[in-house]
Amino acid sequence: MKSGAAAKDNSPPREGHDFRSSCSIARALDLLGDKWTLLIVRDLLWHGKHSFTALQGSAERMPTNILAQRLKKLMAWGLVRREAYQDKPVRYAYELTEAGKTLEPLLLQVMQWGHEQLRGGLYDPKTGKSRGPRAQN
Amino acid sequence: MKSGAAAKDNSPPREGHDFRSSCSIARALDLLGDKWTLLIVRDLLWHGKHSFTALQGSAERMPTNILAQRLKKLMAWGLVRREAYQDKPVRYAYELTEAGKTLEPLLLQVMQWGHEQLRGGLYDPKTGKSRGPRAQN
Repeated sequence: MKSGAAAKDNSPPREGHDFRSSCSIARALDLLGDKWTLLIVRDLLWHGKHSFTALQGSAERMPTNILAQRLKKLMAWGLVRREAYQDKPVRYAYELTEAGKTLEPLLLQVMQWGHEQLRGGLYDPKTGKSRGPRAQN
Repeated sequence: MKSGAAAKDNSPPREGHDFRSSCSIARALDLLGDKWTLLIVRDLLWHGKHSFTALQGSAERMPTNILAQRLKKLMAWGLVRREAYQDKPVRYAYELTEAGKTLEPLLLQVMQWGHEQLRGGLYDPKTGKSRGPRAQN
């Protein structure tokens, strides 16, 4: 592993960012408020996807440029780090930092809402098992 | 109140929507994954802002076209309804439906994360009191 390629772990959220307001929800959305960022967190946290190619392979088919931009942003905020596991061409393994792992309760709550209101599937991180989408009433 | 202008309450999430995947998180983000939608829910749920003008007055200064589009989307999904409270010109009062109110636990979790990781303020819906942003370490 190339330690030089690893972002610092446990780094505090970026100082000096010009947030829209002091509201915690607005601040969280400055970082997480899009259709993709939490899917990357989901795949890193629960589904063992740690390469760019693996992350691209998820059912939602994240476009290459969006995935690259979101990973860059997550690294800049200290929520994701990467380490080179291969030279020529260089290949990186991405993983959540300790700060990134604090997103798990939020992710579980979003999943619960999507399950109850939009009939999506349910994943249990304790067992690693998924249940399919909820049946229609 | 003009009952004809009120969207049906307790309406189920829109049927037949072409979700990106069966993942509950991806489904929730299809609807909530942007920088504004949850701020509208916050203001309707906790801050007594029920007119277009009041919603526009929040610290984040939501642009008119974005606010109009997000309210329309929230109504189409049965999470918000409106009633006309004035004619000529017509003025609407917006409020969360029962389905919209189910977003409260998700909102609390997003706020908690933004407070702990991004040093935003904290609002207690039980007392209606806010605490300012977290002090820097």
